[in-house]
Amino acid sequence: MLFASDNASGASQKVIDAIVAANDGYAPPYGADDWSKAAEVRVSELFERKCAVFLVPTGTAANALALAALTPPYGAIFCHDDAHIMDDECGAPEFFSAGAKLVGISGSCGKISEAGLAATLAAYPRGLVKQVQPAALSLSQATESGTLYSPAEVSVFAGMAHRHDVAVHMDGARFANAIASLGVSPAEMTWKSGVDVLSLGGTKNGAIMCEAVVFFDRDRAADFLYLRKRGGHTVSKGRFIAAQMLAWLDGGHWLELAQHANDQAQRLASGLRAISGVRLPWLPQVNEVFAVLPVAADKALKAAGARYYDWGGRGLEGDDCLKPGEVFVRMVTSFVTREDDVDRFLDITRKAAAG
Amino acid sequence: MLFASDNASGASQKVIDAIVAANDGYAPPYGADDWSKAAEVRVSELFERKCAVFLVPTGTAANALALAALTPPYGAIFCHDDAHIMDDECGAPEFFSAGAKLVGISGSCGKISEAGLAATLAAYPRGLVKQVQPAALSLSQATESGTLYSPAEVSVFAGMAHRHDVAVHMDGARFANAIASLGVSPAEMTWKSGVDVLSLGGTKNGAIMCEAVVFFDRDRAADFLYLRKRGGHTVSKGRFIAAQMLAWLDGGHWLELAQHANDQAQRLASGLRAISGVRLPWLPQVNEVFAVLPVAADKALKAAGARYYDWGGRGLEGDDCLKPGEVFVRMVTSFVTREDDVDRFLDITRKAAAG
Amino acid sequence: MLFASDNASGASQKVIDAIVAANDGYAPPYGADDWSKAAEVRVSELFERKCAVFLVPTGTAANALALAALTPPYGAIFCHDDAHIMDDECGAPEFFSAGAKLVGISGSCGKISEAGLAATLAAYPRGLVKQVQPAALSLSQATESGTLYSPAEVSVFAGMAHRHDVAVHMDGARFANAIASLGVSPAEMTWKSGVDVLSLGGTKNGAIMCEAVVFFDRDRAADFLYLRKRGGHTVSKGRFIAAQMLAWLDGGHWLELAQHANDQAQRLASGLRAISGVRLPWLPQVNEVFAVLPVAADKALKAAGARYYDWGGRGLEGDDCLKPGEVFVRMVTSFVTREDDVDRFLDITRKAAAG
Amino acid sequence: MLFASDNASGASQKVIDAIVAANDGYAPPYGADDWSKAAEVRVSELFERKCAVFLVPTGTAANALALAALTPPYGAIFCHDDAHIMDDECGAPEFFSAGAKLVGISGSCGKISEAGLAATLAAYPRGLVKQVQPAALSLSQATESGTLYSPAEVSVFAGMAHRHDVAVHMDGARFANAIASLGVSPAEMTWKSGVDVLSLGGTKNGAIMCEAVVFFDRDRAADFLYLRKRGGHTVSKGRFIAAQMLAWLDGGHWLELAQHANDQAQRLASGLRAISGVRLPWLPQVNEVFAVLPVAADKALKAAGARYYDWGGRGLEGDDCLKPGEVFVRMVTSFVTREDDVDRFLDITRKAAAG
Repeated sequence: MLFASDNASGASQKVIDAIVAANDGYAPPYGADDWSKAAEVRVSELFERKCAVFLVPTGTAANALALAALTPPYGAIFCHDDAHIMDDECGAPEFFSAGAKLVGISGSCGKISEAGLAATLAAYPRGLVKQVQPAALSLSQATESGTLYSPAEVSVFAGMAHRHDVAVHMDGARFANAIASLGVSPAEMTWKSGVDVLSLGGTKNGAIMCEAVVFFDRDRAADFLYLRKRGGHTVSKGRFIAAQMLAWLDGGHWLELAQHANDQAQRLASGLRAISGVRLPWLPQVNEVFAVLPVAADKALKAAGARYYDWGGRGLEGDDCLKPGEVFVRMVTSFVTREDDVDRFLDITRKAAAG
Repeated sequence: MLFASDNASGASQKVIDAIVAANDGYAPPYGADDWSKAAEVRVSELFERKCAVFLVPTGTAANALALAALTPPYGAIFCHDDAHIMDDECGAPEFFSAGAKLVGISGSCGKISEAGLAATLAAYPRGLVKQVQPAALSLSQATESGTLYSPAEVSVFAGMAHRHDVAVHMDGARFANAIASLGVSPAEMTWKSGVDVLSLGGTKNGAIMCEAVVFFDRDRAADFLYLRKRGGHTVSKGRFIAAQMLAWLDGGHWLELAQHANDQAQRLASGLRAISGVRLPWLPQVNEVFAVLPVAADKALKAAGARYYDWGGRGLEGDDCLKPGEVFVRMVTSFVTREDDVDRFLDITRKAAAG
Repeated sequence: MLFASDNASGASQKVIDAIVAANDGYAPPYGADDWSKAAEVRVSELFERKCAVFLVPTGTAANALALAALTPPYGAIFCHDDAHIMDDECGAPEFFSAGAKLVGISGSCGKISEAGLAATLAAYPRGLVKQVQPAALSLSQATESGTLYSPAEVSVFAGMAHRHDVAVHMDGARFANAIASLGVSPAEMTWKSGVDVLSLGGTKNGAIMCEAVVFFDRDRAADFLYLRKRGGHTVSKGRFIAAQMLAWLDGGHWLELAQHANDQAQRLASGLRAISGVRLPWLPQVNEVFAVLPVAADKALKAAGARYYDWGGRGLEGDDCLKPGEVFVRMVTSFVTREDDVDRFLDITRKAAAG
Repeated sequence: MLFASDNASGASQKVIDAIVAANDGYAPPYGADDWSKAAEVRVSELFERKCAVFLVPTGTAANALALAALTPPYGAIFCHDDAHIMDDECGAPEFFSAGAKLVGISGSCGKISEAGLAATLAAYPRGLVKQVQPAALSLSQATESGTLYSPAEVSVFAGMAHRHDVAVHMDGARFANAIASLGVSPAEMTWKSGVDVLSLGGTKNGAIMCEAVVFFDRDRAADFLYLRKRGGHTVSKGRFIAAQMLAWLDGGHWLELAQHANDQAQRLASGLRAISGVRLPWLPQVNEVFAVLPVAADKALKAAGARYYDWGGRGLEGDDCLKPGEVFVRMVTSFVTREDDVDRFLDITRKAAAG
């Protein structure tokens, strides 16, 4: 009953097999190998557009480098208050951008709102020298609350951003889960809706360490090779990172992995919803389920060895706010989550809630 | 006949096997896994001292992060003019240190000299506000010229540095080759000779992406977790990087790999030395051979598909300087270099040199 | 009727005279002159403690450098949402600290609240690697809303900060106005209440360009000479900046200047309060008056040439929020503000409001 | 007999008078005042071209900000080994550029050579990802050795730089002395010879704190307002810095001041040359005289209270190198240097040398 993080799972066997297979003969280092070239082609095909694709070992690197390519040091990066880049990367975006400012936008369910974005854009007018200058909007897809933006929503936000000459980044650490859930094309979810740069996450969803920064407008990528090198994120034996990406994407494998994780989250969510005393404040759309549990259930689950995060009361609003005797927790499923673990989790919760 | 770079080789099969084996079950992310803990213990045993050990995916990250832990932004980092950190990392040390200055020290055969270091230390007196302040000395072991410092030499330089309150870093991208060649203990080569922090390179010598930053004085590592996280170098599925280090070190495997590479370099060097018209300006002590070849040999080798780097005239002094009709080249061997490739290389050179 | 900014005023004649007088003979450059030494002594006397005092030409430099001395690059700087360092310095604190994060704390009347600070400190626990680490609390005295913290309030906040090993900075761009208003001693207002470093502003209150960074704990200043030099804020002809500070402090001149500005603000506030249709949401405690005016008054004032800032609706709460037909404006007085200008401003407002 | 630094002198009385005169009434802050606008016009006239002109309080700020506008963080800035930006600004260019690398070029008499520049440009080819990218060439005019580049020399170097897409900066801390000495027009010395950005120094030559960054190509200045603000170098009461520039330039005053300093240096140089046992390795072209003195003269001068810098043996070549019993010293004159001080210095030297 490990629901702490999708990072706690290992890798897909197909990805492992690809690493083993890549270990053959010589290959030019630093991304000049055939695997890396093929990965760029493959990602471009997936997005139905010639992209500039850069592989890096971690999600923090993907986000921070992508944003550094979009903002000057005196720029503002707009994102949700709870975005991963805001709170969970120890200031990596500030570091890689040489001191840009992250400006939080509030919003329910982990999603920014139109009003929130409009107010923020208005608060950072271009040319007001005493303030940092509007540079980038970062949307997390899926969000840190396990919710999703529809392509239509992305279009609206991207349109607003672009009208202010603000570039649009998508933090796609769980992009696979988002695509599997929404059933839209990767192109539709990104550049067709106005996204300029995507952090495409492989690691949480089956790779060992493999993330891609995907520039839909190749001109924006002019500096990226230098930024990546200087950041220590240019892997010398590039084949071993590119082979992961190729295997992960091959034959829709990435979506199979994500679908499994999503399905388990749905199973968990449906089960929880049916338990009296449990409520799910946010609609679980990918592989994360946030639930308010009775303390008794929380205790019973932990006693049984279940692992998940206590989320405090963060993000709860109105009737959803915690009452005495309740806790707010996050469960994350992955491509290896087993149905019987989900069911056991539900059983324990059900019994404890029934008291 | 691939002698372009040790990065062009794949990984040791034992390392690959360890990655495969690590892909089992759940493990806490971000370095809290058992593999990562075991790697710290294992490295500490190797160095006969309780060390603080941090794994990162690239050598540039290892160097730049290690140096950032040793210098303030207004600090000076002293290193050889041709050091990798000086010339081959696109300014990574400057980036991670928030703008410290790398100060080059000249010296024959890729090694700094006592006089050079003394003059440099004298040129950067502590407390002279208009100048950057002395902070770190970085020694490359092996050097970029394929030569080595003896422990006695390291002791002298480290002693000079410490008397000026300057910390000592060792760039050990090819530390395994150095140890295999010198036959001294890792402890003797490092902290017993005054090294404070080591970048211990696994990738060039058999890993897929695995380097360790090793602090012999654990107090110096107080900030390192934040620096690494913020730099995007904290691998989420830490088991896959730590498993590499464990397999690589297991039973002296790292030294076997290095010894093979060194042996092939010796074979190549001996062969070349015996050819009239060829000369080796620097003593090949590890897995790199630098040679002045007749242009005819260079042409014949390239025609036969041999791969190696043209080194310009960089670093040549006195009688060794290039004469008309000569080229200066670098050959690098690795743990997979085959004897017959070395012999074929020698044959072609011999015939072409004989004209 | 210039109430736009205290920066729009010139300098006190005594300060100008001191500059003229300092222009005599030779003096060692870069702060080694007698004026600079005397300024450190004089400031130390004023604060009843041996301080480390550094003069710089601008308030942004004073704040950003002071904060850079208190935080690592991966640190968090806590301040009010509307603090000058947050919004009005184009990211200078982020720049000088190499990418630290400013974390806003909300609170009425421009002041942080105990609950707000407690929640923020709780949200940034020390040692949680994925987050920036708590480093500094910055209090603006006077605040951007023209209000003041009492020494007792500062003590409470500083105590909370110190219990979390967080250093306390005071942005005293209008420190003179605060002292003149509260009638407490500079020592009481700062280190006796727990302030570690003060940005002491001279420019807004009578100097041409002169601010001091005052470290009450001299150990914290160990790096400051380098930070200042590297920031280009070490004035070569130091006598001309130090002479300003000496003249400004001499015989309580700084407080006379501030008292005049404060008095004019009180005159303006009293007059406005008496006008029906005008309200002052925040208590004007120094030389800034924030008022909600009828649009008609705003128009009449502008037509008559009055200069002040439109403040939007920023910071208004509850009943104070803008209603149709109202505007929210900021008037700033200075040491040269004339009573008849204040009275004329009031007359026009009164007539227009009476409509 | 103060020859230590031109920074040890005060300000020209005309500059002081202008500060006094500027202290009248209100003026918009942060450079929107009439003085600042007039200064931009006046500087543009001087350079016979519409320039973008930004005033800052220190020379370090001028240089570091100008360079930050010309280089990305992964850029290389080429300059003479002994340039002020290289050695005397505590890493300010690295700081403001977010970690660019300064690459030294050697050359006699403080001047880079054509061969040196060519070799350096060749060593930093554009597009080689592992290296920092060529971005800017900085020429000091006058040099740190008191010598000058002719417009023809600047043209050659700037042409070479531009052919590599490298921008050209001139550090004109002593630009006035250079113009006074060469008798060429400011336009000829700068943009007509290929200079893109000039740091125009007022402080060493008669201002209290006033330097200008002058962009001849206004497009390069697009970011500068933000860089300056963020660096804390946007003076709030801009009139007091602009008034200095206006008075300094008015009626050729700047050149009168510089001419006086240069004349005194010539007087000193001529006198020293005539003394047996004294030699001047570099041609004194502005207000600095470098001389090898007998130790006896050095002692006698110091005993008499003369102030100047010991220059070590730095920069001496061939026959000029120090012999036993000699010291190498630097004397700097200024607009207030008195002829009788020069003559007394010569007398003492003459007597001691005759010893």
